[in-house]
Amino acid sequence: MVSEILYTKDYINVTREKLINNLKEELKPKRFKHVLRVEETALKLAGQYDYKDIEKVSISALMHDHCKDYSDEKMYQLATMYAPYEPLRVANEAVWHGLAAAELARAKYSVFDDEIVHAIAQHTIGAKEMSLLSKLLFVADYIEPGRNFDGVAEARKLAETDLDAVVFYKMRETIKHLVETNKKVYVESVVIYNHWAKKQEG
Amino acid sequence: MVSEILYTKDYINVTREKLINNLKEELKPKRFKHVLRVEETALKLAGQYDYKDIEKVSISALMHDHCKDYSDEKMYQLATMYAPYEPLRVANEAVWHGLAAAELARAKYSVFDDEIVHAIAQHTIGAKEMSLLSKLLFVADYIEPGRNFDGVAEARKLAETDLDAVVFYKMRETIKHLVETNKKVYVESVVIYNHWAKKQEG
Repeated sequence: MVSEILYTKDYINVTREKLINNLKEELKPKRFKHVLRVEETALKLAGQYDYKDIEKVSISALMHDHCKDYSDEKMYQLATMYAPYEPLRVANEAVWHGLAAAELARAKYSVFDDEIVHAIAQHTIGAKEMSLLSKLLFVADYIEPGRNFDGVAEARKLAETDLDAVVFYKMRETIKHLVETNKKVYVESVVIYNHWAKKQEG
Repeated sequence: MVSEILYTKDYINVTREKLINNLKEELKPKRFKHVLRVEETALKLAGQYDYKDIEKVSISALMHDHCKDYSDEKMYQLATMYAPYEPLRVANEAVWHGLAAAELARAKYSVFDDEIVHAIAQHTIGAKEMSLLSKLLFVADYIEPGRNFDGVAEARKLAETDLDAVVFYKMRETIKHLVETNKKVYVESVVIYNHWAKKQEG
Protein backbone atom coordinates (compact mmCIF):
# COMPACT_ATOMS: atom_id res chain seq x y z
CA MET A 1 0.00 0.00 0.00
CA VAL A 2 1.24 3.44 -0.96
CA SER A 3 0.09 4.93 2.32
CA GLU A 4 2.42 2.68 4.26
CA ILE A 5 5.62 4.05 2.76
CA LEU A 6 7.90 5.48 5.41
CA TYR A 7 10.87 7.66 4.61
CA THR A 8 13.70 6.10 6.60
CA LYS A 9 16.81 6.79 4.53
CA ASP A 10 17.33 10.51 5.07
CA TYR A 11 16.86 11.40 1.41
CA ILE A 12 14.55 14.20 2.51
CA ASN A 13 14.10 16.30 5.66
CA VAL A 14 10.34 15.72 6.07
CA THR A 15 8.02 12.75 6.42
CA ARG A 16 5.92 11.60 3.47
CA GLU A 17 2.87 12.83 5.36
CA LYS A 18 4.33 16.32 5.75
CA LEU A 19 5.37 16.43 2.08
CA ILE A 20 1.85 15.46 1.03
CA ASN A 21 0.40 18.13 3.30
CA ASN A 22 2.64 20.76 1.71
CA LEU A 23 1.53 19.65 -1.74
CA LYS A 24 -2.10 19.78 -0.72
CA GLU A 25 -1.62 23.39 0.32
CA GLU A 26 0.30 24.53 -2.74
CA LEU A 27 -1.37 22.67 -5.60
CA LYS A 28 -4.77 22.96 -7.18
CA PRO A 29 -6.91 19.98 -6.08
CA LYS A 30 -6.91 18.47 -9.57
CA ARG A 31 -3.14 18.60 -9.79
CA PHE A 32 -2.75 17.25 -6.24
CA LYS A 33 -4.71 14.16 -7.23
CA HIS A 34 -2.62 13.80 -10.37
CA VAL A 35 0.53 13.82 -8.25
CA LEU A 36 -0.77 11.02 -6.04
CA ARG A 37 -1.66 8.97 -9.11
CA VAL A 38 1.82 9.54 -10.54
CA GLU A 39 3.34 8.23 -7.33
CA GLU A 40 1.16 5.14 -7.45
CA THR A 41 1.90 4.52 -11.11
CA ALA A 42 5.64 5.06 -10.63
CA LEU A 43 5.63 2.55 -7.76
CA LYS A 44 3.82 0.03 -9.93
CA LEU A 45 6.32 0.51 -12.74
CA ALA A 46 9.17 0.22 -10.23
CA GLY A 47 7.86 -3.22 -9.29
CA GLN A 48 7.61 -4.23 -12.92
CA TYR A 49 11.08 -3.01 -13.82
CA ASP A 50 12.67 -4.22 -10.63
CA TYR A 51 13.68 -0.88 -9.17
CA LYS A 52 14.10 -1.48 -5.46
CA ASP A 53 14.34 1.89 -3.74
CA ILE A 54 10.70 2.84 -3.32
CA GLU A 55 11.55 5.85 -1.15
CA LYS A 56 13.32 7.44 -4.10
CA VAL A 57 10.35 6.65 -6.33
CA SER A 58 7.90 8.18 -3.87
CA ILE A 59 9.93 11.34 -3.25
CA SER A 60 10.64 12.09 -6.90
CA ALA A 61 7.03 11.39 -7.89
CA LEU A 62 5.52 13.53 -5.14
CA MET A 63 7.98 16.37 -5.78
CA HIS A 64 7.77 16.50 -9.60
CA ASP A 65 4.97 19.10 -9.94
CA HIS A 66 5.54 20.83 -6.61
CA CYS A 67 6.10 24.23 -8.28
CA LYS A 68 3.61 23.94 -11.10
CA ASP A 69 1.07 26.31 -9.57
CA TYR A 70 3.68 28.89 -8.54
CA SER A 71 3.73 32.24 -10.31
CA ASP A 72 5.81 32.32 -13.50
CA GLU A 73 8.20 34.64 -11.75
CA LYS A 74 8.83 32.37 -8.80
CA MET A 75 9.07 29.34 -11.03
CA TYR A 76 11.54 31.05 -13.31
CA GLN A 77 13.64 32.17 -10.38
CA LEU A 78 13.94 28.65 -9.01
CA ALA A 79 14.51 27.16 -12.47
CA THR A 80 17.41 29.50 -13.23
CA MET A 81 18.96 28.68 -9.88
CA TYR A 82 18.90 25.06 -10.90
CA ALA A 83 20.05 25.60 -14.49
CA PRO A 84 21.67 29.04 -14.77
CA TYR A 85 22.97 28.48 -18.28
CA GLU A 86 19.75 27.32 -19.88
CA PRO A 87 18.09 29.85 -22.19
CA LEU A 88 14.80 29.35 -20.39
CA ARG A 89 13.17 32.51 -21.64
CA VAL A 90 12.60 30.82 -24.99
CA ALA A 91 10.60 28.13 -23.28
CA ASN A 92 7.60 28.50 -21.01
CA GLU A 93 6.42 27.20 -17.69
CA ALA A 94 5.92 23.75 -19.18
CA VAL A 95 9.69 23.44 -19.22
CA TRP A 96 10.57 25.49 -16.15
CA HIS A 97 8.47 23.67 -13.60
CA GLY A 98 10.58 20.51 -13.48
CA LEU A 99 13.78 22.45 -13.00
CA ALA A 100 12.10 24.61 -10.37
CA ALA A 101 10.95 21.53 -8.45
CA ALA A 102 14.46 20.07 -8.59
CA GLU A 103 15.78 23.28 -7.03
CA LEU A 104 13.05 23.30 -4.41
CA ALA A 105 13.88 19.70 -3.54
CA ARG A 106 17.45 20.75 -2.77
CA ALA A 107 16.81 24.12 -1.15
CA LYS A 108 13.75 23.42 0.94
CA TYR A 109 13.80 19.66 1.46
CA SER A 110 17.56 19.01 1.56
CA VAL A 111 17.28 16.37 -1.16
CA PHE A 112 20.84 15.90 -2.37
CA ASP A 113 20.60 12.50 -4.00
CA ASP A 114 21.40 13.21 -7.66
CA GLU A 115 19.26 10.40 -8.95
CA ILE A 116 16.17 11.87 -7.30
CA VAL A 117 16.99 15.47 -8.24
CA HIS A 118 17.70 14.59 -11.86
CA ALA A 119 14.53 12.53 -12.16
CA ILE A 120 12.51 15.54 -11.00
CA ALA A 121 14.36 17.93 -13.31
CA GLN A 122 14.06 15.65 -16.32
CA HIS A 123 10.43 14.68 -16.00
CA THR A 124 9.13 17.11 -18.65
CA ILE A 125 11.45 16.67 -21.64
CA GLY A 126 13.59 13.73 -20.56
CA ALA A 127 17.33 13.70 -21.15
CA LYS A 128 19.88 12.03 -23.39
CA GLU A 129 20.96 9.74 -20.58
CA MET A 130 18.31 8.84 -18.03
CA SER A 131 18.52 6.65 -14.95
CA LEU A 132 15.93 3.94 -14.43
CA LEU A 133 14.32 6.15 -11.76
CA SER A 134 14.15 9.04 -14.20
CA LYS A 135 12.48 6.86 -16.82
CA LEU A 136 9.97 5.52 -14.28
CA LEU A 137 8.86 9.03 -13.34
CA PHE A 138 8.88 10.28 -16.94
CA VAL A 139 6.60 7.43 -17.97
CA ALA A 140 4.38 7.42 -14.86
CA ASP A 141 3.61 11.10 -15.41
CA TYR A 142 2.54 10.25 -18.95
CA ILE A 143 0.37 7.21 -18.39
CA GLU A 144 -1.13 7.64 -14.89
CA PRO A 145 -4.80 6.56 -14.92
CA GLY A 146 -6.10 10.13 -15.12
CA ARG A 147 -4.51 10.75 -18.55
CA ASN A 148 -6.76 10.30 -21.54
CA PHE A 149 -5.11 11.77 -24.63
CA ASP A 150 -5.02 10.02 -28.02
CA GLY A 151 -2.36 7.37 -27.84
CA VAL A 152 -2.39 6.84 -24.09
CA ALA A 153 -3.60 3.27 -24.59
CA GLU A 154 -0.63 2.54 -26.82
CA ALA A 155 1.70 4.17 -24.29
CA ARG A 156 0.30 2.03 -21.49
CA LYS A 157 0.69 -1.09 -23.57
CA LEU A 158 4.30 -0.25 -24.42
CA ALA A 159 4.96 0.40 -20.73
CA GLU A 160 4.08 -3.19 -19.93
CA THR A 161 7.06 -4.55 -21.81
CA ASP A 162 9.48 -1.87 -22.94
CA LEU A 163 10.25 1.16 -20.79
CA ASP A 164 12.69 2.75 -23.26
CA ALA A 165 10.10 2.44 -26.02
CA VAL A 166 7.54 4.40 -24.05
CA VAL A 167 10.12 7.01 -23.02
CA PHE A 168 10.83 7.58 -26.71
CA TYR A 169 7.11 7.45 -27.54
CA LYS A 170 6.42 10.25 -25.05
CA MET A 171 9.21 12.42 -26.48
CA ARG A 172 7.99 11.86 -30.01
CA GLU A 173 4.29 12.34 -29.35
CA THR A 174 4.89 15.46 -27.27
CA ILE A 175 6.77 17.19 -30.09
CA LYS A 176 4.15 16.00 -32.57
CA HIS A 177 1.34 17.35 -30.42
CA LEU A 178 3.00 20.75 -30.01
CA VAL A 179 3.55 21.06 -33.73
CA GLU A 180 0.01 19.95 -34.52
CA THR A 181 -1.35 22.68 -32.29
CA ASN A 182 1.03 25.35 -33.66
CA LYS A 183 2.83 25.66 -30.34
CA LYS A 184 6.48 26.40 -29.88
CA VAL A 185 8.82 23.48 -29.28
CA TYR A 186 11.61 23.77 -26.71
CA VAL A 187 14.71 23.23 -28.82
CA GLU A 188 16.54 21.13 -26.22
CA SER A 189 13.67 18.64 -26.33
CA VAL A 190 14.43 18.05 -30.02
CA VAL A 191 18.13 17.56 -29.29
CA ILE A 192 17.11 14.91 -26.77
CA TYR A 193 14.56 13.36 -29.14
CA ASN A 194 17.26 13.13 -31.84
CA HIS A 195 19.55 11.32 -29.44
CA TRP A 196 16.85 8.77 -28.64
CA ALA A 197 15.84 8.42 -32.31
CA LYS A 198 19.42 7.39 -33.02
CA LYS A 199 19.37 4.89 -30.15
CA GLN A 200 16.17 3.36 -31.52
CA GLU A 201 17.85 2.83 -34.88
CA GLY A 202 20.87 1.03 -33.46
CA MET B 1 4.78 29.33 -71.72
CA VAL B 2 7.67 28.23 -69.54
CA SER B 3 9.75 27.24 -72.53
CA GLU B 4 9.77 30.80 -73.79
CA ILE B 5 11.62 32.27 -70.79
CA LEU B 6 14.87 33.89 -71.81
CA TYR B 7 17.52 34.91 -69.33
CA THR B 8 18.32 38.50 -70.26
CA LYS B 9 19.32 40.12 -66.99
CA ASP B 10 22.74 38.61 -66.35
CA TYR B 11 21.70 36.91 -63.11
CA ILE B 12 23.43 33.76 -64.38
CA ASN B 13 26.25 32.98 -66.80
CA VAL B 14 24.37 30.40 -68.90
CA THR B 15 21.15 30.24 -70.88
CA ARG B 16 18.11 28.51 -69.46
CA GLU B 17 18.58 25.83 -72.08
CA LYS B 18 22.15 25.17 -70.98
CA LEU B 19 21.12 25.08 -67.30
CA ILE B 20 18.42 22.55 -68.12
CA ASN B 21 20.89 20.43 -70.06
CA ASN B 22 23.26 20.42 -67.11
CA LEU B 23 20.45 19.33 -64.80
CA LYS B 24 19.44 16.58 -67.19
CA GLU B 25 22.97 15.23 -67.03
CA GLU B 26 23.40 15.44 -63.28
CA LEU B 27 19.99 14.46 -61.92
CA LYS B 28 18.12 11.19 -61.91
CA PRO B 29 15.29 11.38 -64.50
CA LYS B 30 12.60 11.40 -61.81
CA ARG B 31 14.21 14.31 -60.00
CA PHE B 32 14.81 16.18 -63.26
CA LYS B 33 11.07 16.08 -63.98
CA HIS B 34 10.34 17.23 -60.41
CA VAL B 35 12.60 20.25 -60.94
CA LEU B 36 10.75 21.25 -64.10
CA ARG B 37 7.42 20.95 -62.30
CA VAL B 38 8.75 23.09 -59.43
CA GLU B 39 9.72 25.78 -61.93
CA GLU B 40 6.28 25.69 -63.50
CA THR B 41 4.53 25.77 -60.12
CA ALA B 42 6.74 28.59 -58.84
CA LEU B 43 5.96 30.64 -61.94
CA LYS B 44 2.25 30.06 -61.43
CA LEU B 45 2.51 31.14 -57.79
CA ALA B 46 4.55 34.17 -58.86
CA GLY B 47 1.65 35.23 -61.07
CA GLN B 48 -0.81 34.72 -58.23
CA TYR B 49 1.25 36.65 -55.68
CA ASP B 50 2.31 39.32 -58.11
CA TYR B 51 6.03 38.63 -58.16
CA LYS B 52 7.30 40.16 -61.37
CA ASP B 53 10.83 38.90 -61.97
CA ILE B 54 10.23 35.56 -63.63
CA GLU B 55 13.91 35.10 -64.45
CA LYS B 56 14.68 34.95 -60.74
CA VAL B 57 11.86 32.48 -60.23
CA SER B 58 13.07 30.25 -63.04
CA ILE B 59 16.73 30.30 -61.97
CA SER B 60 16.09 29.59 -58.30
CA ALA B 61 13.58 26.85 -59.10
CA LEU B 62 15.80 25.11 -61.63
CA MET B 63 18.84 25.38 -59.34
CA HIS B 64 17.25 24.23 -56.09
CA ASP B 65 17.98 20.49 -56.34
CA HIS B 66 21.03 20.77 -58.59
CA CYS B 67 23.27 18.96 -56.08
CA LYS B 68 20.78 16.46 -54.71
CA ASP B 69 22.26 13.48 -56.55
CA TYR B 70 25.87 14.39 -55.73
CA SER B 71 27.83 12.18 -53.36
CA ASP B 72 27.41 13.06 -49.67
CA GLU B 73 31.05 14.10 -49.65
CA LYS B 74 30.73 16.55 -52.53
CA MET B 75 27.45 17.90 -51.18
CA TYR B 76 28.91 18.40 -47.73
CA GLN B 77 31.96 20.16 -49.16
CA LEU B 78 29.82 22.65 -51.08
CA ALA B 79 27.42 23.13 -48.17
CA THR B 80 30.19 23.96 -45.73
CA MET B 81 31.63 26.45 -48.20
CA TYR B 82 28.25 28.16 -48.19
CA ALA B 83 27.68 27.92 -44.44
CA PRO B 84 30.99 27.26 -42.70
CA TYR B 85 29.60 27.79 -39.20
CA GLU B 86 26.63 25.46 -39.43
CA PRO B 87 26.98 22.20 -37.51
CA LEU B 88 25.93 20.26 -40.59
CA ARG B 89 27.23 16.92 -39.42
CA VAL B 90 24.23 16.62 -37.15
CA ALA B 91 21.96 16.90 -40.14
CA ASN B 92 21.93 14.81 -43.29
CA GLU B 93 21.82 15.35 -47.02
CA ALA B 94 18.22 16.51 -46.75
CA VAL B 95 19.55 19.70 -45.20
CA TRP B 96 22.85 19.99 -47.03
CA HIS B 97 21.58 19.92 -50.58
CA GLY B 98 19.99 23.37 -50.54
CA LEU B 99 23.12 24.99 -49.14
CA ALA B 100 25.24 23.07 -51.64
CA ALA B 101 23.09 24.29 -54.53
CA ALA B 102 23.37 27.87 -53.28
CA GLU B 103 27.15 27.54 -53.31
CA LEU B 104 27.12 25.94 -56.76
CA ALA B 105 24.97 28.80 -58.04
CA ARG B 106 27.66 31.26 -56.96
CA ALA B 107 30.76 29.28 -57.83
CA LYS B 108 29.78 27.69 -61.11
CA TYR B 109 27.02 29.91 -62.43
CA SER B 110 28.13 33.31 -61.10
CA VAL B 111 24.75 33.91 -59.50
CA PHE B 112 25.37 36.74 -57.06
CA ASP B 113 21.86 38.03 -56.55
CA ASP B 114 21.22 37.43 -52.84
CA GLU B 115 17.51 36.96 -53.28
CA ILE B 116 18.07 34.05 -55.66
CA VAL B 117 20.90 32.53 -53.64
CA HIS B 118 18.96 32.71 -50.38
CA ALA B 119 15.84 31.23 -51.94
CA ILE B 120 17.89 28.24 -53.10
CA ALA B 121 19.62 27.87 -49.72
CA GLN B 122 16.37 28.17 -47.76
CA HIS B 123 14.19 25.86 -49.81
CA THR B 124 14.46 22.87 -47.46
CA ILE B 125 13.82 24.27 -43.98
CA GLY B 126 12.84 27.85 -44.70
CA ALA B 127 14.17 30.74 -42.63
CA LYS B 128 12.96 33.16 -39.99
CA GLU B 129 12.78 35.94 -42.54
CA MET B 130 12.01 34.92 -46.11
CA SER B 131 11.66 37.02 -49.24
CA LEU B 132 8.61 36.55 -51.44
CA LEU B 133 10.82 34.68 -53.92
CA SER B 134 12.03 32.37 -51.17
CA LYS B 135 8.47 31.61 -50.11
CA LEU B 136 7.40 30.94 -53.70
CA LEU B 137 10.14 28.35 -54.15
CA PHE B 138 9.62 26.83 -50.69
CA VAL B 139 5.94 26.32 -51.44
CA ALA B 140 6.30 25.29 -55.09
CA ASP B 141 8.69 22.51 -54.05
CA TYR B 142 6.05 21.30 -51.61
CA ILE B 143 2.94 21.36 -53.76
CA GLU B 144 4.13 20.75 -57.33
CA PRO B 145 1.69 18.41 -59.12
CA GLY B 146 3.91 15.34 -58.65
CA ARG B 147 3.61 15.46 -54.85
CA ASN B 148 1.03 13.21 -53.29
CA PHE B 149 1.60 13.00 -49.53
CA ASP B 150 -1.18 13.22 -46.95
CA GLY B 151 -2.11 16.85 -46.61
CA VAL B 152 -0.95 18.01 -50.03
CA ALA B 153 -4.53 18.88 -50.96
CA GLU B 154 -4.78 21.15 -47.93
CA ALA B 155 -1.42 22.71 -48.75
CA ARG B 156 -2.54 23.42 -52.32
CA LYS B 157 -5.75 24.94 -51.08
CA LEU B 158 -3.92 27.19 -48.62
CA ALA B 159 -1.55 28.23 -51.41
CA GLU B 160 -4.46 29.69 -53.34
CA THR B 161 -5.08 32.38 -50.77
CA ASP B 162 -2.37 32.58 -48.12
CA LEU B 163 1.27 32.04 -48.94
CA ASP B 164 2.53 32.52 -45.37
CA ALA B 165 0.02 29.98 -44.11
CA VAL B 166 1.34 27.31 -46.46
CA VAL B 167 4.96 28.18 -45.64
CA PHE B 168 4.14 27.56 -41.98
CA TYR B 169 2.12 24.47 -42.86
CA LYS B 170 5.12 22.96 -44.67
CA MET B 171 7.42 23.68 -41.72
CA ARG B 172 4.98 22.15 -39.28
CA GLU B 173 4.07 19.08 -41.30
CA THR B 174 7.70 18.35 -42.13
CA ILE B 175 8.68 18.23 -38.45
CA LYS B 176 5.57 16.19 -37.68
CA HIS B 177 6.37 13.70 -40.42
CA LEU B 178 9.97 13.27 -39.27
CA VAL B 179 8.87 12.65 -35.72
CA GLU B 180 6.14 10.25 -36.78
CA THR B 181 8.69 8.18 -38.65
CA ASN B 182 11.26 8.29 -35.82
CA LYS B 183 13.67 10.36 -37.89
CA LYS B 184 16.01 12.99 -36.56
CA VAL B 185 14.93 16.62 -36.79
CA TYR B 186 17.43 19.29 -37.77
CA VAL B 187 17.41 21.57 -34.75
CA GLU B 188 17.63 24.81 -36.75
CA SER B 189 14.37 23.86 -38.47
CA VAL B 190 12.65 23.90 -35.06
CA VAL B 191 14.13 27.31 -34.25
CA ILE B 192 12.65 28.56 -37.52
CA TYR B 193 9.32 26.82 -36.90
CA ASN B 194 9.12 28.46 -33.44
CA HIS B 195 9.67 31.86 -35.01
CA TRP B 196 6.83 31.27 -37.46
CA ALA B 197 4.58 29.79 -34.78
CA LYS B 198 4.97 33.04 -32.88
CA LYS B 199 4.15 35.05 -36.00
CA GLN B 200 0.99 32.99 -36.53
CA GLU B 201 -0.14 33.80 -33.00
CA GLY B 202 0.27 37.54 -33.46
